[in-house]
Amino acid sequence: MQRGFVSDNCAGAHPDILRAISQCNAGHAPSYGEDACTKNAKAAFSRLFGRDVPVSFVFNGTGANVLSLACALRPFESVICADCAHINADETGAPERVLGSKLQAVPSGDGKITAADIAPLLSAKGSPHHSQPRVVSLTNVTEWGAVYTPAEVRALCDFAHANGLLVHMDGARIANAAVACGVDIADLTLHAGLDVLSFGGVKNGLLFGEAVVFFNEPLADAAPYMRKNVTQLQSKMRYIGAQYEALLANDLWRKNAAHANEMAGRLEAALRTVDGIEIVHGAAANMLFVSMPDAMQRAVHDAGYGIAMGDIVRMVAAWDTQQEDIDGLMAVLADM
Amino acid sequence: MQRGFVSDNCAGAHPDILRAISQCNAGHAPSYGEDACTKNAKAAFSRLFGRDVPVSFVFNGTGANVLSLACALRPFESVICADCAHINADETGAPERVLGSKLQAVPSGDGKITAADIAPLLSAKGSPHHSQPRVVSLTNVTEWGAVYTPAEVRALCDFAHANGLLVHMDGARIANAAVACGVDIADLTLHAGLDVLSFGGVKNGLLFGEAVVFFNEPLADAAPYMRKNVTQLQSKMRYIGAQYEALLANDLWRKNAAHANEMAGRLEAALRTVDGIEIVHGAAANMLFVSMPDAMQRAVHDAGYGIAMGDIVRMVAAWDTQQEDIDGLMAVLADM
Amino acid sequence: MQRGFVSDNCAGAHPDILRAISQCNAGHAPSYGEDACTKNAKAAFSRLFGRDVPVSFVFNGTGANVLSLACALRPFESVICADCAHINADETGAPERVLGSKLQAVPSGDGKITAADIAPLLSAKGSPHHSQPRVVSLTNVTEWGAVYTPAEVRALCDFAHANGLLVHMDGARIANAAVACGVDIADLTLHAGLDVLSFGGVKNGLLFGEAVVFFNEPLADAAPYMRKNVTQLQSKMRYIGAQYEALLANDLWRKNAAHANEMAGRLEAALRTVDGIEIVHGAAANMLFVSMPDAMQRAVHDAGYGIAMGDIVRMVAAWDTQQEDIDGLMAVLADM
Amino acid sequence: MQRGFVSDNCAGAHPDILRAISQCNAGHAPSYGEDACTKNAKAAFSRLFGRDVPVSFVFNGTGANVLSLACALRPFESVICADCAHINADETGAPERVLGSKLQAVPSGDGKITAADIAPLLSAKGSPHHSQPRVVSLTNVTEWGAVYTPAEVRALCDFAHANGLLVHMDGARIANAAVACGVDIADLTLHAGLDVLSFGGVKNGLLFGEAVVFFNEPLADAAPYMRKNVTQLQSKMRYIGAQYEALLANDLWRKNAAHANEMAGRLEAALRTVDGIEIVHGAAANMLFVSMPDAMQRAVHDAGYGIAMGDIVRMVAAWDTQQEDIDGLMAVLADM
Repeated sequence: MQRGFVSDNCAGAHPDILRAISQCNAGHAPSYGEDACTKNAKAAFSRLFGRDVPVSFVFNGTGANVLSLACALRPFESVICADCAHINADETGAPERVLGSKLQAVPSGDGKITAADIAPLLSAKGSPHHSQPRVVSLTNVTEWGAVYTPAEVRALCDFAHANGLLVHMDGARIANAAVACGVDIADLTLHAGLDVLSFGGVKNGLLFGEAVVFFNEPLADAAPYMRKNVTQLQSKMRYIGAQYEALLANDLWRKNAAHANEMAGRLEAALRTVDGIEIVHGAAANMLFVSMPDAMQRAVHDAGYGIAMGDIVRMVAAWDTQQEDIDGLMAVLADM
Repeated sequence: MQRGFVSDNCAGAHPDILRAISQCNAGHAPSYGEDACTKNAKAAFSRLFGRDVPVSFVFNGTGANVLSLACALRPFESVICADCAHINADETGAPERVLGSKLQAVPSGDGKITAADIAPLLSAKGSPHHSQPRVVSLTNVTEWGAVYTPAEVRALCDFAHANGLLVHMDGARIANAAVACGVDIADLTLHAGLDVLSFGGVKNGLLFGEAVVFFNEPLADAAPYMRKNVTQLQSKMRYIGAQYEALLANDLWRKNAAHANEMAGRLEAALRTVDGIEIVHGAAANMLFVSMPDAMQRAVHDAGYGIAMGDIVRMVAAWDTQQEDIDGLMAVLADM
Repeated sequence: MQRGFVSDNCAGAHPDILRAISQCNAGHAPSYGEDACTKNAKAAFSRLFGRDVPVSFVFNGTGANVLSLACALRPFESVICADCAHINADETGAPERVLGSKLQAVPSGDGKITAADIAPLLSAKGSPHHSQPRVVSLTNVTEWGAVYTPAEVRALCDFAHANGLLVHMDGARIANAAVACGVDIADLTLHAGLDVLSFGGVKNGLLFGEAVVFFNEPLADAAPYMRKNVTQLQSKMRYIGAQYEALLANDLWRKNAAHANEMAGRLEAALRTVDGIEIVHGAAANMLFVSMPDAMQRAVHDAGYGIAMGDIVRMVAAWDTQQEDIDGLMAVLADM
Repeated sequence: MQRGFVSDNCAGAHPDILRAISQCNAGHAPSYGEDACTKNAKAAFSRLFGRDVPVSFVFNGTGANVLSLACALRPFESVICADCAHINADETGAPERVLGSKLQAVPSGDGKITAADIAPLLSAKGSPHHSQPRVVSLTNVTEWGAVYTPAEVRALCDFAHANGLLVHMDGARIANAAVACGVDIADLTLHAGLDVLSFGGVKNGLLFGEAVVFFNEPLADAAPYMRKNVTQLQSKMRYIGAQYEALLANDLWRKNAAHANEMAGRLEAALRTVDGIEIVHGAAANMLFVSMPDAMQRAVHDAGYGIAMGDIVRMVAAWDTQQEDIDGLMAVLADM
């Protein structure tokens, strides 16, 4: 497959990640997380956040989101999120099925929501006829490529907590968001008041494996049981542990994200030079959304350089994106 | 960790599997199963079974079982299984949570059940007051190490089908079972009348990844949606595909299982020579269960050669078990 | 409590209904629906619709909606409904909990939706990443008091069926809707192409008890099991049967609805004469929604003549509303 | 239908209950439990138990059990109960569907369980691989007609609480149990340490309506939301309230239960005189189970005097059983 901008899920694993898997493969290791790699990875998370934080490793992003929410609410409680949130729009109803809870989707242009979006829903609180708002779920980077800053997350967390709500972040691209803000991940999550984080790894260079980080520690009490209860416990867990150990060592997460963001910025700059292309959502982090004439859109799609979402083309840079990929796309566009 | 007999989940990935992952890592690949590795793996499954079979790759055994059953029943329908079945005893209630269905556990000494165990439950059929029996779930190799033969599976499938039931097999160790019976996996599943199979890979040398194989093809219609709906869709699916491609190529599955079964047999023979050890469930495939005096049990456990399950010690041989592991255990026992 | 316009749920049971309960009380009767009253009620439904229709009696509206939908979809499938639909806004997440399915809420001014609202959601069909649209749920009379005509229902059903969707109607006020349209209930449901109907009884004069009517008969196959599976099976079912027998006999349903609609119309006419009151949603059937100055709103609320929903006051006429109730409200308003 | 011994669900409502419904029918009343009847009923419960107790009224026994358990556990936690428990054997899987939790059924001859039955299941506690035992559910009177004494309930509650478990009682026939023990209901529940009770009304003479009484008050915090979330909120709740007001006034509950128990005792005495009839489970309260020759069983069944459950015939006396019913049965038997 042409290396293009269809998705950061199309990229492979970073060589350091692959090496970590190979290195941890020798011999036997305790299963279900009692192994040294998993312990090391947990310690690395504690270093990243500057204090001990309970972490649960799971398989994928849907699993991370579902586990986060399963630990935070009961079936009569609801999750407030943007309409385009992955949990609402792209997980085939897994949250509703596994949690039994309602998602309350708030319209959003760029995937971000604010306290003003949440406030009207609070009137349901205390009425037995309405699902009770309990968790606000933010996606950072949003599905439309926008980035919440630490101050924005803090404002949302403060508002939520003042109203008896918890805050979850779907951080499938949390590394890209932190880099975009020029801060550490802790600044964008723990220090901003977040309760629980789906810490994304796969889009940042892992083979598989995501992490749920509980800043609100009582939420973690049930996590060991809840994880298997929602089908997300790996037996040979060392392979997730080893990957996270490598990702958090030597700031690999930051390098990968910084590279992807940089390349998305260059891509945006290049596209801005093309007649007929309009930047709908710029590359705040590693994704951008552009509109273009139909014929151009078809050409881009056919050449594997983007993915059409209705009238808009999404382009995502990954940890392995190269300048030649941008050049290749520009060549396609030049041929139009 | 001492390489011992605690679990085949403690073994790493087979070198061929690791190599397959490395080899498929280069460049970009379509996500969610549209990649070449996944397609090749599916073709390999079709060759294994001698006809096209729908296959859904998932992350783990719980996921495979839950997806299999999700495609086969509705919440008012129940699953009949042995009381010791993994779905009933070792999945933290994931089937009940995700399916919403009742599991009807049948007492079983060695993990096998028969038509005679199922028959009394059929009286519930047609009554609106009782969960309606719909699926019989067999585990092969059972949780107590026993093996269903093709004739036994056939008898159960015939009985089940004659009574409007479907048959699922939890084949976490399906390769070991087939090797134990001296048959191909198809003989123990498709040709025996099975409807749907959780095809185990991890205990047979994979890093992660299991497969659901639908012999009753209409059950597969909903599988693409159901898989994500139960949180089990991998984005970078090439890594499961590549592993299965390698596992099914060159009969690696068979070699790994044959080796494990062979070593378990040797282990049993060695243990039979030890005073005070009684073989509770012999090594029909790659697991055995023994009783021994308390002090001996502690020594075995402390040395990492087995895992106590109440008064009984479980010992499992893996694809990488060596004669020296048996010798090591015998040395511990000789020291008593 | 002042008899006012807070809700048709505040009215008691019609004397004929109470009498039917008393009359069926003597002696023993088979439980769970095998009694004569329930059989007679089913026959009355078949007469009402001009053909045999499977009917399941349940306790309440939430139960009727949940049972209807439980028979029509699987957890990876979704329900499209208006944002203000009772199932979405007023059932405390019961549909999500019991069905495990996503509700896809469509913005609606008066509670009605059209094919144009549904069409954009159909792009999800066939993608494993999205919950699959399966049922369109209409409420008639809508939560904002509007009425779908037979032609509108027919258009929606045709569109839905052409796109592989089923249509459910929450007919908590189906009698009022039919009377408002000047048609029989069958014209607004069965003859308009509907698949399944929550047939409301309580707001039309019953003590308790609603009915699910399956026009798409295969949907009813699982209903006897599904009903108990969702907690909605009454043991002494004769008491629901007797009520429906009485409601359908002598056109009581129609008389009650016609009276309530008539009184709502008079109420609207009276309110139109009041300065400062604006009719936001007129009395298409038996409900209307008005805005008024704050002080007036408080007075109306305190006197028990209406219920505030944000800035709007809802007023509902019931089978037992009297002219004196309108006069009483007008007196309160005259005192302002 | 012949008044016989098929079920206490076949009896109608007691005249006082019917009268209470009629009396509360006049005029409007707030819906959803804000009415005077419901408030009075709650006060009556507080008098019955000698202290304020939170009470939630629901429609039926399945609803009461599901609501009780919904307030007491999460999906990864399990309920321990007898294999014949109504929640396990007779509710069509509603607990699993609505709660998502596992039921752990313990074999029981007469429907009673003891600490010794529970103890082996506690080894699962703390392991992430097993559903975590959380609630013990007792049925009193059991499904086989046996009665737990206050001392037995106390012993179970003490054992449960010492092990971090809560205790629920399915008291579909709690009045019969209390009368059988010669104690007040509070002695058998609150004073014995119970956490939550499904307080049965229908088998004791109500038309419909059961109550959940929370002795462990924090469990009640979520009940108002949870009740609608599991579909069990009645709109015109005055009709349940009025029934319970009448049932608890003038010791009607006790009179009805005492009568039924007395008649069951007489029935047992009469049957003991019949050759070929064996009392399998005597009339500890208002139910007995007998075996008899096949021809006799058919005759009893055909005459409507009992219900065959496999080889055993169940006979239940109700609040309205008369000596002539026993005589009628004896006449049938004399004709054999």
